[in-house]
Amino acid sequence: MNASLKSVSRSRSGSTQIHGRASAHEGVLEMPGEMSLYHGGKLTGVHIAWRFVGPADAPVVCALGGISANRRVCTTEEPKNSWWGQIAGAGCALDSDRFRVLSFDYLGASGDTTGPVEGVAFPNISSYDQAAVLLALVDHLNIQSLRAIAGGSYGGMVALAFGERYPERVSQLLVIGASDRAHPMATAWRTVQRRIVRFGLECGKSKEGLQLARALAMSTYRSSEEFAARFGGPATQGEEGFAFPVEDYLFSRGADYAAKTRPEAFLCLSESIDLHRVDASRIFVPTAAVAIREDQLVPLADVRTMVARLPSGRLHEISSVYGHDAFLKECEQLRPIFNAALGNAAAGSPE
Amino acid sequence: MNASLKSVSRSRSGSTQIHGRASAHEGVLEMPGEMSLYHGGKLTGVHIAWRFVGPADAPVVCALGGISANRRVCTTEEPKNSWWGQIAGAGCALDSDRFRVLSFDYLGASGDTTGPVEGVAFPNISSYDQAAVLLALVDHLNIQSLRAIAGGSYGGMVALAFGERYPERVSQLLVIGASDRAHPMATAWRTVQRRIVRFGLECGKSKEGLQLARALAMSTYRSSEEFAARFGGPATQGEEGFAFPVEDYLFSRGADYAAKTRPEAFLCLSESIDLHRVDASRIFVPTAAVAIREDQLVPLADVRTMVARLPSGRLHEISSVYGHDAFLKECEQLRPIFNAALGNAAAGSPE
Repeated sequence: MNASLKSVSRSRSGSTQIHGRASAHEGVLEMPGEMSLYHGGKLTGVHIAWRFVGPADAPVVCALGGISANRRVCTTEEPKNSWWGQIAGAGCALDSDRFRVLSFDYLGASGDTTGPVEGVAFPNISSYDQAAVLLALVDHLNIQSLRAIAGGSYGGMVALAFGERYPERVSQLLVIGASDRAHPMATAWRTVQRRIVRFGLECGKSKEGLQLARALAMSTYRSSEEFAARFGGPATQGEEGFAFPVEDYLFSRGADYAAKTRPEAFLCLSESIDLHRVDASRIFVPTAAVAIREDQLVPLADVRTMVARLPSGRLHEISSVYGHDAFLKECEQLRPIFNAALGNAAAGSPE
Repeated sequence: MNASLKSVSRSRSGSTQIHGRASAHEGVLEMPGEMSLYHGGKLTGVHIAWRFVGPADAPVVCALGGISANRRVCTTEEPKNSWWGQIAGAGCALDSDRFRVLSFDYLGASGDTTGPVEGVAFPNISSYDQAAVLLALVDHLNIQSLRAIAGGSYGGMVALAFGERYPERVSQLLVIGASDRAHPMATAWRTVQRRIVRFGLECGKSKEGLQLARALAMSTYRSSEEFAARFGGPATQGEEGFAFPVEDYLFSRGADYAAKTRPEAFLCLSESIDLHRVDASRIFVPTAAVAIREDQLVPLADVRTMVARLPSGRLHEISSVYGHDAFLKECEQLRPIFNAALGNAAAGSPE
């Protein structure tokens, strides 16, 4: 691909050292010409912010997360800015001493990749479009073939889309809490979230709308059991009426999210999840699919059905009080699954 | 109780005949003096709209439903206005030929009982307050003791509150999809609904807010399996973007609800559910509790825990794709449970 590389050197803290042998390297790919989108429409001047962590000579694993994730996968000097810090990093299930971890800010998101401008709607983005962006990155970075794509939630959907389209460019998919299509109950909850955000935009109160939508989303990410254990206490009566323990949690998390996310970006990626549909029978890349029994958004039954259609699929069932969020939290349960899927390749092994 | 009866004769359609031997009789109880509320505050001039269906000499069963239910329990000449038409009526699980079915419009609701005026907040109402209203009705109608209270959802909570407070006035509780307290996950969803409604009120768009809240509520009433079967089709692309099958369902039901419900009434009763806390170990009335395995709002585990604490409780577990709404739909599964709980008493048996 004829793309120019603007490598952005990391100057903050004067170091790119993370842990062990891992070091970070970032850049921005400016894609030439037009990008045709799966659901119709085109984008021009697309730029993709990407990031590597790990030894330069190690096999490359692309790590992709939920719609609020970004290119900062591993624990860094800013742990709060790293969304997969419990799973990926030196000595972790996805070991950044053994693999070079690649990621990018999603198209249509709130990061440094091309996304919506405030107040302007962005075209519909497909998981196939994110896969096309990743292909451009893989070309640009001269990676013959990815050792794997490890994706949780929306990232799992993008992994499946990439595997269907570009099987020669990836050896293994590891998909956690994602399926070949969204479940209608999950679509129901996200539809309500998007309507709340649009309602907020109409009323000139976009932050409040986004806070409300994220509060609802938070209730779908964990299990009923976890909420029972954490928030079983009685309501407290204040001057403005009763407040419930779970309410404080949901709305403070909602406010955090609304402070750093553009409403239009949320709308774009939330809808991208619900529009995701891949043909599992045409994904020939070996695929390890992890289903969480307590996942309210991606039920075990859906992952089972998908795996039965995959030509080379393997199902791993785990249990977790974290529900859908298990992909962010269950380090010890995911470690053997990562080991089995990624093999014992160490830094320096051929890709 | 020193209360005056204004019996309202039913003139519409010129008949009070329903089915079989059942006939309807309605009235309004005007409660004298002040009513002290469980969560603080008082109400004066409270009036309660009640309704009887069934033979005058039959044992009385009080039937209570969810927060959108009202006194019109059984199928009438206006079937759409009857919320328990599949369960209660002539020949149904709750047989209005064998029992006289009593109900009332909830305090704080949108019916003909005292409730909020538009634009004015109403005090917090407890399930104990609804039980006190029912006690006033039982006194007023000269019922020595109810044969049973059969309650689904919020109505089950009111039944439990009545059983704890006034055990000498009821022989049996039949509680479906309700427990001694709300589950924090269900509280999470209702909290978001109330915040949406308040957001709509702040923005001067109360109907839109209530429609959104009800759309969310609808997604919690059924099971994931039912949504998968009904709404698994792809999105359709229109001029305003994509629409999902489940979205059309949720928002048309939301609009119906918003057209007939006062936002302040929704806020009052929704919060009443989350504030509900009874002491199961002090409910000595024999209690049959029906748990629906697919109920997202009232998990089986919570009903089991409650029944273990009830001095005289019996658990019935059922499965239903209707989830929480099974109390409205599962006629054949509920019939033997009603028969066991209500006994074989026919019209004319002593109460």
